[in-house]
Amino acid sequence: MVRCLELARQGAGAVSPNPMVGSVIVCDGEVVGEGYHEAFGGPHAEVNAIASVGDGAVLRRSTLYVNLEPCSHHGKTPPCADLIVEKGIRRVVIGCGDPNPQVAGRGVAKLRSAGVEVLEGVLEAESKRLNEAFMTSHAEGRPFVALKLAETLDGRIATADGQSKWITGDAARLEVHRLRCSYDAVLSGAATIRADGSRLTVRHCAGRNPLRVVLDPSLSLSPDAPVFGDEAKTLLFASQSMEGSPSALRYAAIGVEMVFVEEGTGGLDLRAVLDELHRRQVLSVLVESGGRLSASLARERLLDKLYMFIAPKLFGGDALASFAPLGVSSPDEAPAFRFEPPRLVGEDVLLEAYTVR
Amino acid sequence: MVRCLELARQGAGAVSPNPMVGSVIVCDGEVVGEGYHEAFGGPHAEVNAIASVGDGAVLRRSTLYVNLEPCSHHGKTPPCADLIVEKGIRRVVIGCGDPNPQVAGRGVAKLRSAGVEVLEGVLEAESKRLNEAFMTSHAEGRPFVALKLAETLDGRIATADGQSKWITGDAARLEVHRLRCSYDAVLSGAATIRADGSRLTVRHCAGRNPLRVVLDPSLSLSPDAPVFGDEAKTLLFASQSMEGSPSALRYAAIGVEMVFVEEGTGGLDLRAVLDELHRRQVLSVLVESGGRLSASLARERLLDKLYMFIAPKLFGGDALASFAPLGVSSPDEAPAFRFEPPRLVGEDVLLEAYTVR
Repeated sequence: MVRCLELARQGAGAVSPNPMVGSVIVCDGEVVGEGYHEAFGGPHAEVNAIASVGDGAVLRRSTLYVNLEPCSHHGKTPPCADLIVEKGIRRVVIGCGDPNPQVAGRGVAKLRSAGVEVLEGVLEAESKRLNEAFMTSHAEGRPFVALKLAETLDGRIATADGQSKWITGDAARLEVHRLRCSYDAVLSGAATIRADGSRLTVRHCAGRNPLRVVLDPSLSLSPDAPVFGDEAKTLLFASQSMEGSPSALRYAAIGVEMVFVEEGTGGLDLRAVLDELHRRQVLSVLVESGGRLSASLARERLLDKLYMFIAPKLFGGDALASFAPLGVSSPDEAPAFRFEPPRLVGEDVLLEAYTVR
Repeated sequence: MVRCLELARQGAGAVSPNPMVGSVIVCDGEVVGEGYHEAFGGPHAEVNAIASVGDGAVLRRSTLYVNLEPCSHHGKTPPCADLIVEKGIRRVVIGCGDPNPQVAGRGVAKLRSAGVEVLEGVLEAESKRLNEAFMTSHAEGRPFVALKLAETLDGRIATADGQSKWITGDAARLEVHRLRCSYDAVLSGAATIRADGSRLTVRHCAGRNPLRVVLDPSLSLSPDAPVFGDEAKTLLFASQSMEGSPSALRYAAIGVEMVFVEEGTGGLDLRAVLDELHRRQVLSVLVESGGRLSASLARERLLDKLYMFIAPKLFGGDALASFAPLGVSSPDEAPAFRFEPPRLVGEDVLLEAYTVR
């Protein structure tokens, strides 16, 4: 199963909105074949693994390992459960179930009713973690939302004078570019984009550019801003009230796609934004925001994961806070997370944490 | 030398204001003796190591390893350099120099002029780190100052309603008690002591109580406060203007020792406080303070080390900040630190960092 997860990871960045899946075929204690889901729309991991074996007699004596429940439905490819049965594989070991309502246990049921022995839940946590975006997308009906922040030891994202270049070092900034590659979309607000002159592209490492998502309720950014450069696609969310406005027409003229959503007191309706991204099959969003948007996401309990880059500096209480007010009165009410093991990234520390629900 | 450092550490908590020192004697590639400085006023490491060998002929063919330069002066014990020469030891390997102005190279000079071969600077950084408090005390003429904080991921030490129980978990609180054991004094301000009902004693682990140092300019704390309990000694610093006041007399009546120092706009004169502690041979101070005192120490560049316990929670921008304003306008002006490798302590993360000067 560890090898399945390794194989699966090779599909990172190429398979979304499909999950990353790897499969290994073992006969008489030896690995005789393996494969992974290589690209969206291409054959599934099980198909590739089975094809890598070839010999039908060997397959009939083999166990197939796969980190995600084999599919049971006709999608872009025929059901993997049917193929496994057809090839006479007797035993299947599965990492975790597929939350896709078209599968959701039907893959396992199909195998069992055909007499295949099925073992579920092997390295289940690791299997779910690998496809956390895919899992969240199906379970919550919205993309997996991660927030990336670079702050000082005292939780500040800019000095009292508004200076934020640079809080963290080169290694941390490179790590952010690596993170961007691994997310389907990067989302940021107009104020942060203006302050940082952000491009939201992947530059300091190899990798595809994610979809850029810009929240600008009043269309305050200039259409010339680097974030609208044509090296990547940008989706611009604005307030419903801006629809058909002269500003909107200027964006339309340069080919920027716009989506208009309701605006509340705290900015654009974030659930509506995520709904739209979900509709567009965006599985995961990396948010790079200022204190206001970060706080809105925290208040609405929309954060699944945090990447906090902590710089070994102090800016003090008069500097800009990483989170706007949250109205937490007792520690028990605070948005709570669970840390992953922390690590140094150059001179900074990266704290990764998952929401506790 | 690694073994010297191990041995030296066994004196932790018992030798201050002396340094922790371990010594190993090696003859023909084999360890033939070892010793460490066990208690303040007792024999030095070299004396114990030499005594553990006994055989003078062996000593004359041996190399003595020690993590700190052998002393050259008559203190509570005769000079170790003289003993080494007298015993005919031919070679001495030293971790780092002794900054004590009564030694400061004289130990090495004495050995060399007697024909002893001396190798200096072996595991020098580790040797200095082990005795960082002793080094700072001599180099800066004040105690080594470490600040311990428990804050949320967004740098908050209490909610908007002032609630701080509990930010961090049991494991982090136990670690704080371990830290207290390893410092000569624990220092806190009246506001924090009042808010937390602090005792500043070592309770959740074995170890001696450090000296408790309380800063209370206007003598606002009740003499009944737990921090004045008689399980440990407390030194109370107040404003010069309180000398002879009725409040001061009440403290005197219960036997609390007071020191009166100048008061500036930011509270008591911290350098005067540290001067007094230095005079009392306090090598190291662990500060457990609120945002105001923490900021004063940071502003005056009096922090040598930080222990930041980070809880996986968010309190938001309306909660109490870990540091009061510092007036930092550009990131380059910010008090800067260097991280040690971070680690999980229960559900929290401990970030240790040293000041970059």
